[in-house]
Amino acid sequence: MNIKAKGLLTKSSSGETLDAYFPVIEFNDQKTDIQDINTDNSEKEVVEIHWTQKDLDKPIEDVVSAYLKLHLISYRFVLPNSINLDGLFNALPNVAWTNKGPISIDEIDQELLNSKQNKNDLFIRSLDKFPQLVDYIIPKNVRIADTSRVRLGAYLSPGTTIMHEGFVNFNAGTLGTAMIEGRISAGVVVGDNSDLGGGCSTMGTLSGGNNIKISIGENCLIGANAGVGIPLGDNCTIEAGLYITAGTKIELYKENGDIDGVFKGSELSNCSNLVFLRNSQNGKVFAKVNQKSINLNSELHKND
Amino acid sequence: MNIKAKGLLTKSSSGETLDAYFPVIEFNDQKTDIQDINTDNSEKEVVEIHWTQKDLDKPIEDVVSAYLKLHLISYRFVLPNSINLDGLFNALPNVAWTNKGPISIDEIDQELLNSKQNKNDLFIRSLDKFPQLVDYIIPKNVRIADTSRVRLGAYLSPGTTIMHEGFVNFNAGTLGTAMIEGRISAGVVVGDNSDLGGGCSTMGTLSGGNNIKISIGENCLIGANAGVGIPLGDNCTIEAGLYITAGTKIELYKENGDIDGVFKGSELSNCSNLVFLRNSQNGKVFAKVNQKSINLNSELHKND
Amino acid sequence: MNIKAKGLLTKSSSGETLDAYFPVIEFNDQKTDIQDINTDNSEKEVVEIHWTQKDLDKPIEDVVSAYLKLHLISYRFVLPNSINLDGLFNALPNVAWTNKGPISIDEIDQELLNSKQNKNDLFIRSLDKFPQLVDYIIPKNVRIADTSRVRLGAYLSPGTTIMHEGFVNFNAGTLGTAMIEGRISAGVVVGDNSDLGGGCSTMGTLSGGNNIKISIGENCLIGANAGVGIPLGDNCTIEAGLYITAGTKIELYKENGDIDGVFKGSELSNCSNLVFLRNSQNGKVFAKVNQKSINLNSELHKND
Repeated sequence: MNIKAKGLLTKSSSGETLDAYFPVIEFNDQKTDIQDINTDNSEKEVVEIHWTQKDLDKPIEDVVSAYLKLHLISYRFVLPNSINLDGLFNALPNVAWTNKGPISIDEIDQELLNSKQNKNDLFIRSLDKFPQLVDYIIPKNVRIADTSRVRLGAYLSPGTTIMHEGFVNFNAGTLGTAMIEGRISAGVVVGDNSDLGGGCSTMGTLSGGNNIKISIGENCLIGANAGVGIPLGDNCTIEAGLYITAGTKIELYKENGDIDGVFKGSELSNCSNLVFLRNSQNGKVFAKVNQKSINLNSELHKND
Repeated sequence: MNIKAKGLLTKSSSGETLDAYFPVIEFNDQKTDIQDINTDNSEKEVVEIHWTQKDLDKPIEDVVSAYLKLHLISYRFVLPNSINLDGLFNALPNVAWTNKGPISIDEIDQELLNSKQNKNDLFIRSLDKFPQLVDYIIPKNVRIADTSRVRLGAYLSPGTTIMHEGFVNFNAGTLGTAMIEGRISAGVVVGDNSDLGGGCSTMGTLSGGNNIKISIGENCLIGANAGVGIPLGDNCTIEAGLYITAGTKIELYKENGDIDGVFKGSELSNCSNLVFLRNSQNGKVFAKVNQKSINLNSELHKND
Repeated sequence: MNIKAKGLLTKSSSGETLDAYFPVIEFNDQKTDIQDINTDNSEKEVVEIHWTQKDLDKPIEDVVSAYLKLHLISYRFVLPNSINLDGLFNALPNVAWTNKGPISIDEIDQELLNSKQNKNDLFIRSLDKFPQLVDYIIPKNVRIADTSRVRLGAYLSPGTTIMHEGFVNFNAGTLGTAMIEGRISAGVVVGDNSDLGGGCSTMGTLSGGNNIKISIGENCLIGANAGVGIPLGDNCTIEAGLYITAGTKIELYKENGDIDGVFKGSELSNCSNLVFLRNSQNGKVFAKVNQKSINLNSELHKND
């Protein structure tokens, strides 16, 4: 493992490092398109980093390492959940992300006052530890309708469309073509040719008190306003409006229509070829064998 | 049918047409407020178009036609679902929408690098085939709390409020006064005096595998986090959190309280005066006659 | 009660007041950090205001009073629901909020045309009566992932994180540490150490036909895509995907497991230590005593 990176740091007036932009990365025999970077801006500082496997494996201790690890995921050099991100929240400062770049939280009140007294041309897009992905990396063959909803550290494969209601956290993303109109929480990955319907939820490991890593297999369809708190196998469907958690009791039907038994959601983790429904006349949640596969509308998903 | 339009094209450095802005349109005896347009900007090109009915009826084959058709809907010269939009996705290039206007996807990496090395003043709002409505047209007597959530091609009638959680796709919109805190999918229209609650979903024809065109009648209320996959008539209510699809089995009550039978959602398409609920003690979805009409808070909906 | 405020008004070309920015406020013995304000901008006008209790108690009659009252809430000088906001919607003009500051709706068409003919550098973030909070006030020790989703008039306590899917209306907010990934409607307050899951809904008093003021107590967890239409006490949980309204019938269990009876949601208003669930095998909504308290991940919630 041989990683070389060259980037630019933004510094606050007091010398605090606010972010790091790494357009130049060599990762073993792969590299980014951009070859070099320079600056005449005195608030910027050029940084060069040489990493090996042990740097990927150890916890994060500073802002520069945090940004480099997030870049490695978003450039798709490494998969989500494959490198050590411990310490990430502690390492990242809370920053005001503005139309004039990142500004220190300690300096933003004065900057806002200056703007108001003059041309009123400053606005603050976000107050957050994480910037948005496309301030740093523009993924290829991807559409992101509202870029504020995809954080740096998202892993987006070619053929992915993130609609306005879609969301992708850091250390999470899509492994192939996907239509994302719901929320991909931290740590969650979505398989090729899957579709997250409008407003649907995937349970993350950061909130919700759940320690199971959620993933969605290939050819899955999570309906609008539905949710999933278990890892799904391939070819699974959850109907619109239904939330399946680890504790949901689910009556399972065999392919011949016989009842197989009642299982907890967690017991159906990683099972393939299931469609999850709620009987609208007696409230019973059940799962049966998925008889149809979804066909994503090919024209709709064109990203070129 | 006599349509004359004058507009400006934005070109990339390599000559690709990125978008077309048509502030000057005559549509039979109607016309836009702006009378003429000119530019000294070398990246811009003035274009004039003369169309008849057959142009509205034929598929879209280029980016300029795509933009003109989207303008015709958003200027409310034509209704959603009334003109031929076949070919739209193929005709529209994926574009980086920035605070400096549209930039070609092929050129955005270099522009981002330049910004980072210098003033850090570029940011990318969207990577999408569709721009947002208000980059082109400001609808009258309309509020849009977050403009990134309404695409060009939306049809918004005076008295419409789109709250932060609201969304309107192209070829979709409101036919009168409306409070929209949920998502209006492509092809969906909402009747006068209706209210889409926070986070509610309307099934589009683009995703979801559904070929029925969804519409919402007048004086309807879709509750927060609810959803609708059938066309609704007038004076209908769906309670918060309930998703009615074409396949939902619904016990229908007559006005005298007797059971009329159990129907699929699709069988109740376009029915008026129904309130849809789920019995919270036995899970049964049912519909009964709507006894109250909703009164939108008149002060809240003021848009002037 | 002694309130002194100094601020800047933005005027349109025709002299209409578009907004008021009050960085300098003395409120009894508290005051804001900024001591004075001046401007050379001819579109701006300095204003000084001296208020007593009666000004807080009377309805709003002009845009300047509207903005000052919203500032008082967002600076946390006063609690939500504690001052008279009658007349607020009438007093506030609908404004185009742009990257060049607020622009009158009457002038925005021309400004957009000018931009399109020239550098294409105008864009409109919002068409609304309310601006976003951080155009005026940057709350301390708060993260707001997407600033467009928090209106001026929001009350955000230190330790609050508003994620991308979170939303906070005016006259609403958090009374302590909180992780907000759902929507806080106008008038709603959330107690210390509570967590609103992704896409969850709180019913506001502005829409929905409900006159009960909703609040969430301390140590509560509202699950993803869930919803609440009653005031909750402390230590309550609503499972993901479940919407509890005033009319929901809920089977209540005693601590010993016996059934206490079936109650309407409104009858359980302000009760503490309840977890609300839907039985996934018979559709019955029920509540039982909450055996676990939630522990917000301390690292995740760091805001410094």
